[in-house]
Amino acid sequence: MVNQYKESKITLLGAGPGDPDLLTLKGVKALQTADVVLYDALTNEALLEHAPAEAIKVYVGKRSGEHSYPQETINKLMIDYALNYGHVVRLKGGDPFVFGRGYEELDYAASYSIPVDVIPGISSSIGVPGLQQIPVTHRGLSESFWVITGTTTSGEVSNDIYQAAESNATVLVLMGLKKLAKIVEIFKAAGRHNLPAAVVQNGSAADEKLVVGVVETIENLAKQENVKAPALLIFGEVVSLHPSFKTLVKQYASIA
Amino acid sequence: MVNQYKESKITLLGAGPGDPDLLTLKGVKALQTADVVLYDALTNEALLEHAPAEAIKVYVGKRSGEHSYPQETINKLMIDYALNYGHVVRLKGGDPFVFGRGYEELDYAASYSIPVDVIPGISSSIGVPGLQQIPVTHRGLSESFWVITGTTTSGEVSNDIYQAAESNATVLVLMGLKKLAKIVEIFKAAGRHNLPAAVVQNGSAADEKLVVGVVETIENLAKQENVKAPALLIFGEVVSLHPSFKTLVKQYASIA
Repeated sequence: MVNQYKESKITLLGAGPGDPDLLTLKGVKALQTADVVLYDALTNEALLEHAPAEAIKVYVGKRSGEHSYPQETINKLMIDYALNYGHVVRLKGGDPFVFGRGYEELDYAASYSIPVDVIPGISSSIGVPGLQQIPVTHRGLSESFWVITGTTTSGEVSNDIYQAAESNATVLVLMGLKKLAKIVEIFKAAGRHNLPAAVVQNGSAADEKLVVGVVETIENLAKQENVKAPALLIFGEVVSLHPSFKTLVKQYASIA
Repeated sequence: MVNQYKESKITLLGAGPGDPDLLTLKGVKALQTADVVLYDALTNEALLEHAPAEAIKVYVGKRSGEHSYPQETINKLMIDYALNYGHVVRLKGGDPFVFGRGYEELDYAASYSIPVDVIPGISSSIGVPGLQQIPVTHRGLSESFWVITGTTTSGEVSNDIYQAAESNATVLVLMGLKKLAKIVEIFKAAGRHNLPAAVVQNGSAADEKLVVGVVETIENLAKQENVKAPALLIFGEVVSLHPSFKTLVKQYASIA
């Protein structure tokens, strides 16, 4: 089908952390006018139901560690579909600009003069702790939060994590489960052995799982509970507000 | 009216940055079952249309600097309404746990054994730069972003801003417009005179305004453009990706 009638355009759409009800109304409207949807592994397929039945739906990403389309291929597909079919919705997990390589897609589209709309999504970094009733900020405990990727291009842990371990910010690490041992080591080197910490597996989804401890214990706890990616790491005093942390404290007190 | 039939419950609902279409589907569903809505200045009144016509709608907050209900009064109202009317939706700008004092409300409700649901919202800290097509992270430029309040309980600038000015993180300051001079001074003291910087007034709303420059120039530019609160401050190399920054660079090059 050649696009003789429809204007080419691209919408970079943040799908949120997983629960399809965490999509925005603006996101629903974009999907309703989609001719093509290109979607990631981290997006919930239930979201595709907002798109017209006749829209083309293309799966372009797999989970971290598995094979996936190279970014360049996704960029090219996006352009091809926009030129040939009209409105392409690029549906991305979380927010398009939080470690989502969204700007690379925007930039590529701009080089073809195809207009791009950006629709923010609930980032797991904020939404996943929130759903667990762990606030990323709280008066007296945290005046800021710092969101860092656990997976850099080089394969090394980001230098930013070293600085974050020394800071008073609530630290949230996305895509960091595989690096948990190294990250824990960094926090220990900063003397933060007793800083409250949590790991949340697949926040907002049916197999969500929460593990709560401190820097010293969190790695073993995550192993015991067999936590799997995708997972969010949380380091900060705010974790102590979670009811299960209060239970932990009581247990330790009864041992001591 | 005494609540003889309805279960008391509270939903802390994040309304997003302002555009009513940035509410989530989960948020719409919560509002549809509200008996009472308590809403802030930073939420868009159009959102109230999702609530039943007969639901009680109470405005409990004014913009920063004006008079507003003390937090304790809001807490008490929330409980009174929940006990007497059933489902209270506490509608808050942005995300409930990003400098929203949401946890204080949750904690207060818990002390009355009233169940609380949390529904995350699009935080301005991520969504507002995104709508301006400024990514908070981008490969090669930023592996993290740090979100800080510009307004602390003490009235002083948060110590976290001093650390952030030394970091490689994209730095996002909410409620910081009044402290812009001081914050700029902190970035200069860290030798970051040429770090790209932006100020976004009332992101996602009709009177949205963007000012782009560098640390050295941003305060004057914001004054010239008469930027008003609420505003988001953005410091980081990612600001250089904005088209208007590229224009600026060309202007400087033509002068030099």
